[in-house]
Amino acid sequence: MSLTVVGSIAFDAVKTPSGVRERMLGGAATHFALGASFFDDIRVVGPVGDDFDEDAWRVLRTRGTITDDVEHVPGGKTFFWKGEYHDNLNSRDTIETDLNVFEGFEPKLSDAARACHVLFLANIQPDLQRGVREQCTGARFVAMDSMDLWIKIARESLEATIRGVDCLILNDEELELLTGKPTVLAAAQEILGWGPTAVVAKLGKYGAALYTAEGVFAVPAYPLETVVDPTGAGDSFAGGFVGYVAAQRDEDITHDLLSTAMAYGTAVASFNVEAFGTERVEQLTAGEIAERVVDLQRMTSFSAEPVALRG
Amino acid sequence: MSLTVVGSIAFDAVKTPSGVRERMLGGAATHFALGASFFDDIRVVGPVGDDFDEDAWRVLRTRGTITDDVEHVPGGKTFFWKGEYHDNLNSRDTIETDLNVFEGFEPKLSDAARACHVLFLANIQPDLQRGVREQCTGARFVAMDSMDLWIKIARESLEATIRGVDCLILNDEELELLTGKPTVLAAAQEILGWGPTAVVAKLGKYGAALYTAEGVFAVPAYPLETVVDPTGAGDSFAGGFVGYVAAQRDEDITHDLLSTAMAYGTAVASFNVEAFGTERVEQLTAGEIAERVVDLQRMTSFSAEPVALRG
Repeated sequence: MSLTVVGSIAFDAVKTPSGVRERMLGGAATHFALGASFFDDIRVVGPVGDDFDEDAWRVLRTRGTITDDVEHVPGGKTFFWKGEYHDNLNSRDTIETDLNVFEGFEPKLSDAARACHVLFLANIQPDLQRGVREQCTGARFVAMDSMDLWIKIARESLEATIRGVDCLILNDEELELLTGKPTVLAAAQEILGWGPTAVVAKLGKYGAALYTAEGVFAVPAYPLETVVDPTGAGDSFAGGFVGYVAAQRDEDITHDLLSTAMAYGTAVASFNVEAFGTERVEQLTAGEIAERVVDLQRMTSFSAEPVALRG
Repeated sequence: MSLTVVGSIAFDAVKTPSGVRERMLGGAATHFALGASFFDDIRVVGPVGDDFDEDAWRVLRTRGTITDDVEHVPGGKTFFWKGEYHDNLNSRDTIETDLNVFEGFEPKLSDAARACHVLFLANIQPDLQRGVREQCTGARFVAMDSMDLWIKIARESLEATIRGVDCLILNDEELELLTGKPTVLAAAQEILGWGPTAVVAKLGKYGAALYTAEGVFAVPAYPLETVVDPTGAGDSFAGGFVGYVAAQRDEDITHDLLSTAMAYGTAVASFNVEAFGTERVEQLTAGEIAERVVDLQRMTSFSAEPVALRG
């Protein structure tokens, strides 16, 4: 039993107010795996090229992540992304996107990858996501990410894919765009009617919120004095969140279980943004994650004892 | 003993995706008083003109708010603001601002208003705020709001005013602008070095965060399916927040007390935005506030029991 993730493996070049990196391991599946590897055996499905060197394999295999399903495309080059963040880190410009081996990517799952008990579909073309989902018939929890591009150019396929998963994870603006609803709550309620039992709104530096039939849960981002590189924060969050669910294999996947999973995802993501790329999460320890989860609980607790009010 | 608020009393004309109102009671002091009136005796200090009619007085006096210090300027007109919100309610255009009697406003406090035990300085010119603060020598808790305009054109005066209060309440972007720091946490820590013992970051639809020497507390906005009119949400929040503190007159003003106050402010603000202007908060009951405070506690609670992690 293991957690399978399908998505991009990339080299990133990133410039932020804190500095520059010309080439470091990135991609949604990478950031997800680094975070999820604290919780379960992770199998990564995604393509790489001839330039995928020993150091990249080493990083991807952090904490035992299984790379048997990483497809090496001979003669190909690994997906490359170059981006630059603006002063407040709220927005970024993409300088260059070379899809390379990712362009013709058709996920091929080994029997072991198909036999996963939990599946995460990182942001790729929704037809491909749906194809993978349909192969993993034994998965007890399937979560997916997406992006505004697919909402705009492949809405029908995206909706069909969403109908087949347990949990949709999107930015708040994407949820509103997808549903045409004016608030995240209304958007999430709409999507809960399509099939998923859980919707997670990623709120960037403001945290994340969970919506299920049982209600709403919200957790703030872990407060940091400096954010070095936000790249991969959402995928790190998903890694901690989905990883936590995968680790609780004997528990029912309830609203409360997912709420705790949100706190783990938030903790993992907070370390991701403290350094460029995977630099911080590579070095991360289980104890550091647990500490921030406890911190988050303290930072959100308050007394609701009744007080006398007028009127 | 009472809670004094100094700030604007206005007529607002507002257009949002939910509808239009051509003239309704607004202004920071109004929204603050409506929220705070659940907690304590409120004294409002601010100017109005000849056009301030019986209905406006009635609304302002909701739940017993004392209007003896409202200055009627004979021959003058009440401050008027007209604004239009865009589709997602995240931004608005000001169509018209007629300062009218607010232009030459110099706060005059009666002995009773000066004798307040808690003081809220709504967003007005910082010299005026400081003048009021210096008159209220017996106040055990003084909080203030401000805006980007004063950061840009009266920074020195604003800083001097901030140094004299217990609690600064600002939007996250304004906190970053004021301090030149890249994150709200870094900005808040800078300001805690100036004198205030508490900094509150208003995060709009994402909620609010509190920073003290004891740490950070964060609370999400109360989730709503529809937001009708965001005008006054920040002042309603301040009303609930500062009002709660005022009501706990025998308690030490600790991080924990302020955290609960944040939940009350959040609850009050959530009602404010459910209808235009003061329409919803006029009709609000204490029981409804208490219910949302309990809801907020449930929506932010999670188990942080240790789990086995790898690595």
